[in-house]
Amino acid sequence: MERLQVEQLLEDMIVWRRHLHRHPELSYQEKETSAYVADKLAAFGIEMIRSQTGYGLTGILKGALPGRTVVLRADMDALPIREDNGCEYSSLNEGVMHACGHDGHTAMLLGAAAYYSARREELAGEIRFLFQPAEEVCPGGAQGMIAEGVLEGADAVYGLHLWTPFPVGTVGSAPGPLMASADEFFIDIIGRGGHGGMPHKTIDSIVAGAALVTQLQSVVSRSVDPLRPAVLSVGTIQGGFAQNVIAERCRITGTVRAFDEETRHLIRRRIEEMTAAVAAAHGAEAKLDYVMGYPPLVNDEAEYGRFARIAPEALGDSVQVMRMEKLMPAEDFSYYVKQVPGCFMFVGAGNPHKNAIYPHHHSKFDFDEDAMLHGLRLMIAMADSSLAEPTLV
Amino acid sequence: MERLQVEQLLEDMIVWRRHLHRHPELSYQEKETSAYVADKLAAFGIEMIRSQTGYGLTGILKGALPGRTVVLRADMDALPIREDNGCEYSSLNEGVMHACGHDGHTAMLLGAAAYYSARREELAGEIRFLFQPAEEVCPGGAQGMIAEGVLEGADAVYGLHLWTPFPVGTVGSAPGPLMASADEFFIDIIGRGGHGGMPHKTIDSIVAGAALVTQLQSVVSRSVDPLRPAVLSVGTIQGGFAQNVIAERCRITGTVRAFDEETRHLIRRRIEEMTAAVAAAHGAEAKLDYVMGYPPLVNDEAEYGRFARIAPEALGDSVQVMRMEKLMPAEDFSYYVKQVPGCFMFVGAGNPHKNAIYPHHHSKFDFDEDAMLHGLRLMIAMADSSLAEPTLV
Amino acid sequence: MERLQVEQLLEDMIVWRRHLHRHPELSYQEKETSAYVADKLAAFGIEMIRSQTGYGLTGILKGALPGRTVVLRADMDALPIREDNGCEYSSLNEGVMHACGHDGHTAMLLGAAAYYSARREELAGEIRFLFQPAEEVCPGGAQGMIAEGVLEGADAVYGLHLWTPFPVGTVGSAPGPLMASADEFFIDIIGRGGHGGMPHKTIDSIVAGAALVTQLQSVVSRSVDPLRPAVLSVGTIQGGFAQNVIAERCRITGTVRAFDEETRHLIRRRIEEMTAAVAAAHGAEAKLDYVMGYPPLVNDEAEYGRFARIAPEALGDSVQVMRMEKLMPAEDFSYYVKQVPGCFMFVGAGNPHKNAIYPHHHSKFDFDEDAMLHGLRLMIAMADSSLAEPTLV
Amino acid sequence: MERLQVEQLLEDMIVWRRHLHRHPELSYQEKETSAYVADKLAAFGIEMIRSQTGYGLTGILKGALPGRTVVLRADMDALPIREDNGCEYSSLNEGVMHACGHDGHTAMLLGAAAYYSARREELAGEIRFLFQPAEEVCPGGAQGMIAEGVLEGADAVYGLHLWTPFPVGTVGSAPGPLMASADEFFIDIIGRGGHGGMPHKTIDSIVAGAALVTQLQSVVSRSVDPLRPAVLSVGTIQGGFAQNVIAERCRITGTVRAFDEETRHLIRRRIEEMTAAVAAAHGAEAKLDYVMGYPPLVNDEAEYGRFARIAPEALGDSVQVMRMEKLMPAEDFSYYVKQVPGCFMFVGAGNPHKNAIYPHHHSKFDFDEDAMLHGLRLMIAMADSSLAEPTLV
Repeated sequence: MERLQVEQLLEDMIVWRRHLHRHPELSYQEKETSAYVADKLAAFGIEMIRSQTGYGLTGILKGALPGRTVVLRADMDALPIREDNGCEYSSLNEGVMHACGHDGHTAMLLGAAAYYSARREELAGEIRFLFQPAEEVCPGGAQGMIAEGVLEGADAVYGLHLWTPFPVGTVGSAPGPLMASADEFFIDIIGRGGHGGMPHKTIDSIVAGAALVTQLQSVVSRSVDPLRPAVLSVGTIQGGFAQNVIAERCRITGTVRAFDEETRHLIRRRIEEMTAAVAAAHGAEAKLDYVMGYPPLVNDEAEYGRFARIAPEALGDSVQVMRMEKLMPAEDFSYYVKQVPGCFMFVGAGNPHKNAIYPHHHSKFDFDEDAMLHGLRLMIAMADSSLAEPTLV
Repeated sequence: MERLQVEQLLEDMIVWRRHLHRHPELSYQEKETSAYVADKLAAFGIEMIRSQTGYGLTGILKGALPGRTVVLRADMDALPIREDNGCEYSSLNEGVMHACGHDGHTAMLLGAAAYYSARREELAGEIRFLFQPAEEVCPGGAQGMIAEGVLEGADAVYGLHLWTPFPVGTVGSAPGPLMASADEFFIDIIGRGGHGGMPHKTIDSIVAGAALVTQLQSVVSRSVDPLRPAVLSVGTIQGGFAQNVIAERCRITGTVRAFDEETRHLIRRRIEEMTAAVAAAHGAEAKLDYVMGYPPLVNDEAEYGRFARIAPEALGDSVQVMRMEKLMPAEDFSYYVKQVPGCFMFVGAGNPHKNAIYPHHHSKFDFDEDAMLHGLRLMIAMADSSLAEPTLV
Repeated sequence: MERLQVEQLLEDMIVWRRHLHRHPELSYQEKETSAYVADKLAAFGIEMIRSQTGYGLTGILKGALPGRTVVLRADMDALPIREDNGCEYSSLNEGVMHACGHDGHTAMLLGAAAYYSARREELAGEIRFLFQPAEEVCPGGAQGMIAEGVLEGADAVYGLHLWTPFPVGTVGSAPGPLMASADEFFIDIIGRGGHGGMPHKTIDSIVAGAALVTQLQSVVSRSVDPLRPAVLSVGTIQGGFAQNVIAERCRITGTVRAFDEETRHLIRRRIEEMTAAVAAAHGAEAKLDYVMGYPPLVNDEAEYGRFARIAPEALGDSVQVMRMEKLMPAEDFSYYVKQVPGCFMFVGAGNPHKNAIYPHHHSKFDFDEDAMLHGLRLMIAMADSSLAEPTLV
Repeated sequence: MERLQVEQLLEDMIVWRRHLHRHPELSYQEKETSAYVADKLAAFGIEMIRSQTGYGLTGILKGALPGRTVVLRADMDALPIREDNGCEYSSLNEGVMHACGHDGHTAMLLGAAAYYSARREELAGEIRFLFQPAEEVCPGGAQGMIAEGVLEGADAVYGLHLWTPFPVGTVGSAPGPLMASADEFFIDIIGRGGHGGMPHKTIDSIVAGAALVTQLQSVVSRSVDPLRPAVLSVGTIQGGFAQNVIAERCRITGTVRAFDEETRHLIRRRIEEMTAAVAAAHGAEAKLDYVMGYPPLVNDEAEYGRFARIAPEALGDSVQVMRMEKLMPAEDFSYYVKQVPGCFMFVGAGNPHKNAIYPHHHSKFDFDEDAMLHGLRLMIAMADSSLAEPTLV
């Protein structure tokens, strides 16, 4: 393979991305996607390890020279959404859609694989191209692949997200916490049902449930450090089946978001305490199922420093480099940066001239494919910079 | 017709009742029941007025002598319950059942008609035998028949309820309020839905709804006179459809019980005020649909006095006459006693030896038919006593 | 002593009452009052037993013939109120006032003692004239005197209350529960204070206290039988000392009223449970001091029946006999009727023509002294009726 | 005056600071402090403008050459705290204490005045030495002095705070919001008092107040952007005067903290809405007095950039330069940076070896005086850097 320049790869990435967009696959069902990636990696002469975690796949590129190990990660799964954006490369898989840009992520990582495979001789160190399944569900694919050892011996890990809320021509990240954890809870208040006119013979689970929802508001308002962002939202409440019968059960479900583990566990503990105590206050019983989702995504400070230093130069004056505010959505890249210093970065991909104006997970979602070039440049610049560091012996 | 003695009528009442029990009809569908009653009244030589209110029917018996006018009332409708008591006279109408004793009420009133029709010559005054449709639903049959004039010129109105919670061999009533009003309310809290992690862009209808349920508790605890029994129960709450999405709407339904109109209207007003204000406190909107059900049943003090005075003598030592506590269920006999002095009375009909141990509205419900004799005696004694009073000119 | 007729005693009672009114004494300080009573009893030739409970005093009049034993009770204490009604017999004891009518109660009981002392020869049975100290405080004087044996061997006990909310010319009572129990509670919520801007380092006792007050509303609305009147009122709340400092402590005090022991103890238990649980829900601690006051006053059904039967005849057509609604104030006569069948009765004493228009415990309180004649007649009629019953052997 | 080097000024600053420490004066009473400052400025040959805002004073130093105008600010007031730290320069003014370090701030600004007064000839531009009264109370001295024109024509404004929570040898600041606004609110809920046993005749202000405190928790939990730190704390609640009397009034006071005006005004608006609505829900009235305190202190991004760039060089390797987290206390320096680009900086002054371990406003508070040298260097470096910028014409 000739020595491709980065800009020459955009055309390929567009072809790859559109193929993937036409053939989206749901989380843990990315069979064809994985096969497509494997074909390309094979064509680039890159050795592969197939994961036991769904259809995960890791390309291993060892340079001719010794050095550090850098992991670059993409996610491959699509969403159970019926595409409605009328583009020519629209989903051929009815009811499934790449509505979050993972097709672009995969294409960019293939671009990086192509780029480095042509530079193997001068490469000092190792690059792993990690194609992860299932980022849209919980548990996601990251944990499994980590358990299998994809991070073993790694010195740094980088990931990207194309992002239509930012215009094409911007990239951003933040030091420390950048994306929230997202846990879920399911509470059943169990009282004793009975005649609506005889409350004294019942234990009113709705009154207990309402008291709980009301008092849960004080978890964020009182127990959480005001300088540490966090959210506790009740999403559903359901109790009773007739207006004149006192309800035996009231079910409450909700979500918890935080940007640090201490706050996250504090909120969990307070929900546990409060649920038990408020139910007891009303003579009811309570069952709580608290499901830990993705942890907060916390960028390494030094790796973010690398981004802030390297990105302006790598991307040139036409691209703006931003220090981002925190984001409430969760991302299972968080598991990688818990193990290895790394940085997750956002690549602006919105463009009203190309109809790239819809939010992620929308049925009309699309992104400006030019953003993939920015993403590729950024990934390469981060990898090169990291590999250029001296190896600790 | 020969001059039947009361006790001779029991056998007939049992026959009639069992026929009706086998052929139960739902509220406002009492076509065959009404026809059966009409046949009997015709056989007794009693003139009838057919009501425009469903299949209501009023027998008019004018005595040979002038005097007061007394109305005796029975209700005729059955319930949408599948009978499961295995008696030989079990319902032949699948899914419909006389599970509240209205078959017995109708039979007793036919008994009274038979009794008085044989005494027309010596009767001073008029007796109306009011067979009402639809006591189990709202609106019930009473209002329509009153509007048609069944109470016109009436001096007193009496009604009975067979009652299995009391043993056969007891009768009871109370002066003033005896049975509750039963209203219903339906509240929609309308907020603005949104991402569970971004509450500030939403108006959380569940938090508003929970606050409302919590504060509605203070209506009874603070606004209602503690000496006036009342209940406000929320029966259902329902909001949201996903644990990580803030709910646009929360629906709350419930029931209100009171024993006097002032308290009933006070509670309605407080629900209206509180719903509007608590929704406003949370920036939400609220819609309230408050449906007035049957009013409180308030016996006339003097007519209760008649009961307390007359019943012991009429029923003899083997039957115990009780001053009852208030009851939470509602009864549309309440409309009659709002117009004309009257008394509603309960006739104990429970008997473990006859399997009459289930509560009203239960699929295994049955009553001790001997109670019908007590009921008939009581009705006759009340009517005779009332008719014996001097007519006011 | 000549055989006084009842009506002749009114003049004496007025003299005695005015003397007592001029010389009011606080609860457990009724030294001169007791001495005054003792002088009169001695003059009537009635034997006395001095109580160890404050200045309590019991006159014992044994009739010439054997029979039943009836206890008649009056209370003697005044209130720490500065009299402001300008009457000629106004308090000479600055800051202390007979603002509840106990002066009249004492005078009426002296009247009864005078009456019966003149009829000793024809008296069959024993009458005890129980002059109780301290009805206005908790614990009151009743418990002590009962413990000393004043009810030993007694067959019936009667007590009266002059009552200005009812007009002179009425008397009333009720079967069963007539007056409420009155308990008090004192709650301390103990959190952890701190900087108003750093709630996460504190435990906010005010938020916990507010949650408790809010949820206590559901004790009456949900846990108490709606047919059993009860009140739980928070009277005070106090927490914190500066608007920008989170409060370490929040103190909540209140009162509980009920008309039966079951409800009373239910409310106590619910307060205990709720206080502990709501504090726990907020991570705070709670201390609860629940002080049992007077129990509910529950008249004996049969003794009330005696009242309803006897009073109209004894008092004549000019006095109306009423069946009363329950009253929220408490009265330690309740202790006597827990031991011995009895009846507490109210004697209407309001009269706008005599400035008897103020509520009890008001600084301008006064009553129509003619009511004392009704009270005396009623007490004598009840005692005579009870004594006339056959003695059980 | 000879050309003093910065380090030579430490000794003087210590002398000045200790003098001021011995003679603390409360807010708006800084008469002697101001006179002391005036003496020094006069000695330095610096022109002064006396403020009409208390004892405020501004030294004006115009350089020989034209240029930009930089304002350096110190605050002069002490606190109503009785000093208890046993230092040799302890307060001689009983009950008043420099417990926040304003003595040091004043001394450092005198140091800067001394420094620049010796460099007038080479100074291009103007430096204003702003000695502000009353930073510890609301309203503080800043607004008045701004209204008098102290910022007129100014290009930059800088202020320092000695800070014992950070060790000596550190300085810090942050871009954008650094310190909170601090508003206060005072709510009166006005109901209708009455007998504790007759809640229906009252409007229970404590129940309404408790509902309000409970629901105010949802302002932060629901209405505020979770990424924008904010606090709403109720500091006091007070209602009622007897446990068995329902309270006519309940008073609630609290504090509001935010770091941006939009959030601050959002919270104010929500408190207003909620107070009115929750009172209305309970039939009560409410009065709200919301007192706007100091606004959020928001550093200019570019001026913070200057700090981050300049401070490491100016202070050398022995001093650590930190990007700080936000702080909850408020500071009226915020008013200056609303008008003119500027930066507020913290100078670490804690030192366990010098007993500088107590928090600000503590009676044992003291700081490591060596920190004043860091502060002086920082102020000079910021001023020099700002003055070195080209003047915009």
